[in-house]
Amino acid sequence: MPSTTPSNTAVPVTVLGLGPMGRALAAAFVQGGHPTTVWNRTAGKADELVAQGATAAASAAEAVAASELVIICVIDYDAVDSILESASAAIKGRTLVNVTADSPERARTTAAWAAEQGADYLDGTILTPTVTIGTPNAVFLFSGPEALYERHRDVLASLRGTATYLGTDFGRSAAYDVALLDFFWTSVSGLMHAFALAKKENIAARELAPFALGIFNILPPIMELLAGNVDDGIYPGEDSNVASVAAGIDHIIHAAEERNMDTGVLRAARAVAQRVIDEGNGTDGIERLAEVLSRPAK
Amino acid sequence: MPSTTPSNTAVPVTVLGLGPMGRALAAAFVQGGHPTTVWNRTAGKADELVAQGATAAASAAEAVAASELVIICVIDYDAVDSILESASAAIKGRTLVNVTADSPERARTTAAWAAEQGADYLDGTILTPTVTIGTPNAVFLFSGPEALYERHRDVLASLRGTATYLGTDFGRSAAYDVALLDFFWTSVSGLMHAFALAKKENIAARELAPFALGIFNILPPIMELLAGNVDDGIYPGEDSNVASVAAGIDHIIHAAEERNMDTGVLRAARAVAQRVIDEGNGTDGIERLAEVLSRPAK
Repeated sequence: MPSTTPSNTAVPVTVLGLGPMGRALAAAFVQGGHPTTVWNRTAGKADELVAQGATAAASAAEAVAASELVIICVIDYDAVDSILESASAAIKGRTLVNVTADSPERARTTAAWAAEQGADYLDGTILTPTVTIGTPNAVFLFSGPEALYERHRDVLASLRGTATYLGTDFGRSAAYDVALLDFFWTSVSGLMHAFALAKKENIAARELAPFALGIFNILPPIMELLAGNVDDGIYPGEDSNVASVAAGIDHIIHAAEERNMDTGVLRAARAVAQRVIDEGNGTDGIERLAEVLSRPAK
Repeated sequence: MPSTTPSNTAVPVTVLGLGPMGRALAAAFVQGGHPTTVWNRTAGKADELVAQGATAAASAAEAVAASELVIICVIDYDAVDSILESASAAIKGRTLVNVTADSPERARTTAAWAAEQGADYLDGTILTPTVTIGTPNAVFLFSGPEALYERHRDVLASLRGTATYLGTDFGRSAAYDVALLDFFWTSVSGLMHAFALAKKENIAARELAPFALGIFNILPPIMELLAGNVDDGIYPGEDSNVASVAAGIDHIIHAAEERNMDTGVLRAARAVAQRVIDEGNGTDGIERLAEVLSRPAK
């Protein structure tokens, strides 16, 4: 059997930002056997990591100086910018891996800034909650120069789970992120409204939850078909068309209004269906919604 | 081994309404060995079922007269009412099982009407698509008198899948239905917007789809916790609070607006988060959204 490659396990790593996600990342690197330097803007967040074997740096610059590979995970790119500016003297020759969530535009801007400083840059997205980090359930996306990703992928593999390289466009992992969060938060909004509506009929959220998971399971088998139709601009409406969905949403709105609820999201979703109907495409399948949504409402 | 109980397999069943779902139901009863009588308002829908062994009735009244157990599956309760009125002379002593989708109120009204005619009534909901009928993946909900459900459950088991009895309130299965469709259609709306947003960044829906399934999988493990907190009015915000979700939605809205998209649903979801923040509860967990949604927006 091949032995473990020492060059991977011995690679020093720095983690900037010790919120819950940053701490989870740093702990996974420590666990993976990497000399791990950590820093946070406010003190006290590093204590547990230091007890596990990490080294706390006194400044962002000191932390950046400690490792060629620097992971940054903070609240937003404004925080990224100010932290990296404060450490700019140490940044030349480093590889920055920025897993902070923000827009594709900000990822590209930060990549350009890093290039000006003589640093390499990868942008990353973490699609799964903090508790998944260091477990097989973690999901990561990375984008930037392919050779750079290849050079660091074994170290990044200490985070466990699944990592996907999306290509050279620095903004690509953030673009995935924003689209996926769009789906996720809209779905959560719908779930919370469903719980509220059920409660009005004395159905506990606990009672509804198993069936909510069940109805959720309708999507996976049809996801690929829906996606392919969206890509191909094909909108078959034999099984379910936008007009029938609109009628269904009308029922839900009616039920929610009778129960004196907030119906804003439902009315907005209904208005999108109406756009399809007004354009004469009500008998098209639900994939037509994606086409209409790509254009602004009047 | 016990032999098949003849009394179950020989029970005649009538199916009123032969849209795709009605045809699937009738085919499952035929497959289950039940003498199956079918009827549809417009002709021609019964041909394939007759070839399989079903009997086509010339009128709704004739179809109702043919079986004690009558399943009705049509477009909405207006259609239910007009069909049952036309067959009212034959309805006394029948058990109507109405799996037409509509509101809890309509289910209760139809149950009361059936009682006036001397008929028994069960309301039902089919939570899964047509293709699941007669397979283990079908999911059904029923509500109404428990003894009545028990009397017919073996015959209804010909539809296969999982059936859950929800209690004596005739409106309960419809209440589940409307809440679950609320969740489902809001989620689909979010998925279509995500596909559209991704496309603006030259990410094909086919490329996004596997990750959309992945982010979907965040919900099942936390569903029970969220539901319990909603029931108990507990809104822990340590991991993710409404203010941070609002900031996340702002990023998505910003990205979508920059790409000249329809942002109506996102803005509506953001407005709900703002209600929570305005009420001083922005540090509460996302379960607080359900509480606010149960009250009308100003």
